[in-house]
Amino acid sequence: MSDPTAPRPFDDIRALVTSRPAPDADAIAATRAREQDLTKPAGSLGRLEEIAAFVAGWQGKAPPEVSSPTVAVFAANHGVADQGVSAFPASVTKQMVENFRKGGAAINQICLTNDLALRVFELALERPTGDILLTDAFDSERECAATIAYGMEAIAGEVDLLCLGEMGIANTAIAAAVLHALYGGTADEWVGRGTGVSDEGLAHKADVVGRAVARLDGERDPLVVLQRVGGREIAAMVGAILAARQQRIPVVVDGFVTTAAAAVVHAIEPDAIAHCLFGHVSAEKAHRAALERLGADPLLDLGMRLGEGTGAALAAGLIRAAIQTHRGMSTFSDAGVAGPGGE
Amino acid sequence: MSDPTAPRPFDDIRALVTSRPAPDADAIAATRAREQDLTKPAGSLGRLEEIAAFVAGWQGKAPPEVSSPTVAVFAANHGVADQGVSAFPASVTKQMVENFRKGGAAINQICLTNDLALRVFELALERPTGDILLTDAFDSERECAATIAYGMEAIAGEVDLLCLGEMGIANTAIAAAVLHALYGGTADEWVGRGTGVSDEGLAHKADVVGRAVARLDGERDPLVVLQRVGGREIAAMVGAILAARQQRIPVVVDGFVTTAAAAVVHAIEPDAIAHCLFGHVSAEKAHRAALERLGADPLLDLGMRLGEGTGAALAAGLIRAAIQTHRGMSTFSDAGVAGPGGE
Repeated sequence: MSDPTAPRPFDDIRALVTSRPAPDADAIAATRAREQDLTKPAGSLGRLEEIAAFVAGWQGKAPPEVSSPTVAVFAANHGVADQGVSAFPASVTKQMVENFRKGGAAINQICLTNDLALRVFELALERPTGDILLTDAFDSERECAATIAYGMEAIAGEVDLLCLGEMGIANTAIAAAVLHALYGGTADEWVGRGTGVSDEGLAHKADVVGRAVARLDGERDPLVVLQRVGGREIAAMVGAILAARQQRIPVVVDGFVTTAAAAVVHAIEPDAIAHCLFGHVSAEKAHRAALERLGADPLLDLGMRLGEGTGAALAAGLIRAAIQTHRGMSTFSDAGVAGPGGE
Repeated sequence: MSDPTAPRPFDDIRALVTSRPAPDADAIAATRAREQDLTKPAGSLGRLEEIAAFVAGWQGKAPPEVSSPTVAVFAANHGVADQGVSAFPASVTKQMVENFRKGGAAINQICLTNDLALRVFELALERPTGDILLTDAFDSERECAATIAYGMEAIAGEVDLLCLGEMGIANTAIAAAVLHALYGGTADEWVGRGTGVSDEGLAHKADVVGRAVARLDGERDPLVVLQRVGGREIAAMVGAILAARQQRIPVVVDGFVTTAAAAVVHAIEPDAIAHCLFGHVSAEKAHRAALERLGADPLLDLGMRLGEGTGAALAAGLIRAAIQTHRGMSTFSDAGVAGPGGE
């Protein structure tokens, strides 16, 4: 029996969601006003204009500024990798973290191209979470909450745009389990090929995910779902999303696994991810369905399915361009350009 | 009666199309081979991988290189502006060229963000083409061919990726006329709001375009269409596309007006635009239909409709990232990362 006087770490998380700041209406209005006076037909930069207002609103700053954009990549290992749900061995998680540190991975190149800082966080790689086919991922609410808290700390410092990404062999199975648990349906609907499993591997993966979620017996509390069938990188990204909101930092979500973290926050309170942009829709089968549940309209659709924050980091290039156009363009009066109907 | 011994400048253009180089199969094969060994699941960078092979094939170079990407913006004026088919006065073309030179336009900011060189070409702005409602745009085949030739010269020098864009009040009406003439249908189908005409203005614009194309009496020769209902920026971009092919420079096409230039080349010979990527689908109504005729799959869909090369220049950021990932990533063996099924 649970002790009613014991501390409830998830309650602290829920309280944080409740105390979230709203967008700054004045900064949005000022940004929209300036946008109307820039030397282009009104609305002709499309989503770039929306992005400028979005960033201004969450930063509480007009004009908005993106001078310290950062990609945070959270790496974790998963007990369920033992079930053979990935095309790659679990040892690759650690090897890829080394690759990130040496600058040899895809995310390093995209950060270089788009001038983004990269921070990599290893989450106890030598200690995988519990195999969700058999047991809960986190031993306790406390342990899960501690990982969320770690993710909150990870964005300390100078960051004015946060791209979230992850690395973790078997974590598309984990993300599928979280989404299946939150949204129902069948495991098949939420499971995809991840790094590239075969047809047979895909069927096996769906079976594992389905049985893992069946253990939950219909439990849909998002934080309990996270604790029981989630993983450390997803928990840490939940924390990063929540902390970014508190610190008024707009977030760019990457692909399927990162979206599962956003889905956990959204399931607590839909408005709690209002400061998130979705960088891309990936080739992982269920990503589009997950984005639809969140009402998200991704910026890119390039058939990518790598993770590491690569889709978010590519989208950050578009966001930089949006902010630069908003800040750097001349106004009609400054440039001596006639407006509509003028001479 | 035409003199059969007179020079036929369009024949020189057609001969250039016929002599176009093919992609370099060895460079593509070498790029695909390296791609398989980079530290990521095979295919997981989606279109970025396709872009790397595409650029390699057209450059004839493995690995492909994008170190001197350039945006060329062609500016022109149009007699049909007198018919009131734009929300802006024709004087804006020259004013915006000044704005480009001073660095105050949207394209300047996107070039800054993505580290692209910008070249602006003024095409006799003080001498608009003929008003296509009443007369041919170019007085003669020779004049049209000379403008195409000017566009060919414009890309001389160090360019390894060419983004094409334009500026010209009333040129979405011109582009609609070219597409309507090439593809048939009704003027309504090809005419959109451009910089933002009203409902009434839109109906008037469609009427003007329809009557201009009716003058052609079913003429569909692409170069004759260009001469009779086209414009100088479109002719120059036709030249730039053809010259880029000869020089093995991959091209990024911008929005509706630039796509009309690609459509002229495509109508001469579909394969002659095989070295072109399409940067985005714009919010101009008929752009998607034009792209479909070309079999083009645009990289971005952000609701932009500014022209100036802005959509192409944004897409160039994705292309830079594609080339950087291909060139900069470690291989599995270099990085000590296990491959699929490895340990």
